[in-house]
Amino acid sequence: MTLHDELLANNARYAADFSAGALRVRPLRQIAILTCMDSRFTAQGVLGMQLGDAHVIRNAGGRASEDAVRSLVLSSTALGTRWCVVIHHTDCGLLGVTNEELRARVEAVSGVRPDIDFLPISDVASSVSEDVALLRACPYFPPDYQVLGFTYDVTTGRLHSVEE
Amino acid sequence: MTLHDELLANNARYAADFSAGALRVRPLRQIAILTCMDSRFTAQGVLGMQLGDAHVIRNAGGRASEDAVRSLVLSSTALGTRWCVVIHHTDCGLLGVTNEELRARVEAVSGVRPDIDFLPISDVASSVSEDVALLRACPYFPPDYQVLGFTYDVTTGRLHSVEE
Repeated sequence: MTLHDELLANNARYAADFSAGALRVRPLRQIAILTCMDSRFTAQGVLGMQLGDAHVIRNAGGRASEDAVRSLVLSSTALGTRWCVVIHHTDCGLLGVTNEELRARVEAVSGVRPDIDFLPISDVASSVSEDVALLRACPYFPPDYQVLGFTYDVTTGRLHSVEE
Repeated sequence: MTLHDELLANNARYAADFSAGALRVRPLRQIAILTCMDSRFTAQGVLGMQLGDAHVIRNAGGRASEDAVRSLVLSSTALGTRWCVVIHHTDCGLLGVTNEELRARVEAVSGVRPDIDFLPISDVASSVSEDVALLRACPYFPPDYQVLGFTYDVTTGRLHSVEE
């Protein structure tokens, strides 16, 4: 079976047991979660959120990139979120590597050297602090917008507050 | 109780029942999912993936933005994914709006007019096709990298293939 057909078969089982069809586009808890693409957790699971509660923005590292800002600004000004929760995690693929190393890796695999800033992380609590500060300084959010920062330990499932 | 304390209390319950601590950083199924930040579904749920199986990249619309490309290139060349699954959905906050409307909305809420391209969507199957084509044309992926495209109906839970 191809991956395409396997995914449609999995989805048919999901749809047969589907009960979220009455939820609306605006998140009920007015929360947006910004976290890493890592496969080992869901943003909702870690924070005890239900379907319909919170927007979920994920990228490599959970970084407050320009695109994350695009998403969070839309989330807050058009769809009513009032909190952003930033979560970076232990054992991240961006932790302890450099742009030069990552660009060389891409060139070895694809044959082309990219001019990408991969937004690598040298310390996971520091990167949360940086991104929380960046978002708090962004002028495009509502006046009462709040940003919280945590690190997540992938071996224990535990969040830890990042002090400001 | 503050949101901060509520989230830590929710997480303590999650950590008490935690069983994913032995999973590793490389996704077991070699899949990266690119989809929208919408609150009404999880990427894993819709495709029948388990924790540890797939990277999850989410932003407003599930668009193949520069930051999504950053994440997907890292995912494939450093962490071994070989498939990208692009999913956009019905009733998206980016569907049928314009950049001008969204910029005016931000200005009304924040007092500042942003120069952001929100990557609005006029037709959800067309935007999937565009983003699949963009990723297939990207030179930074491994030679055998494959990209699949689907739309997701938030009222039924069903995926639909987007023909190339």
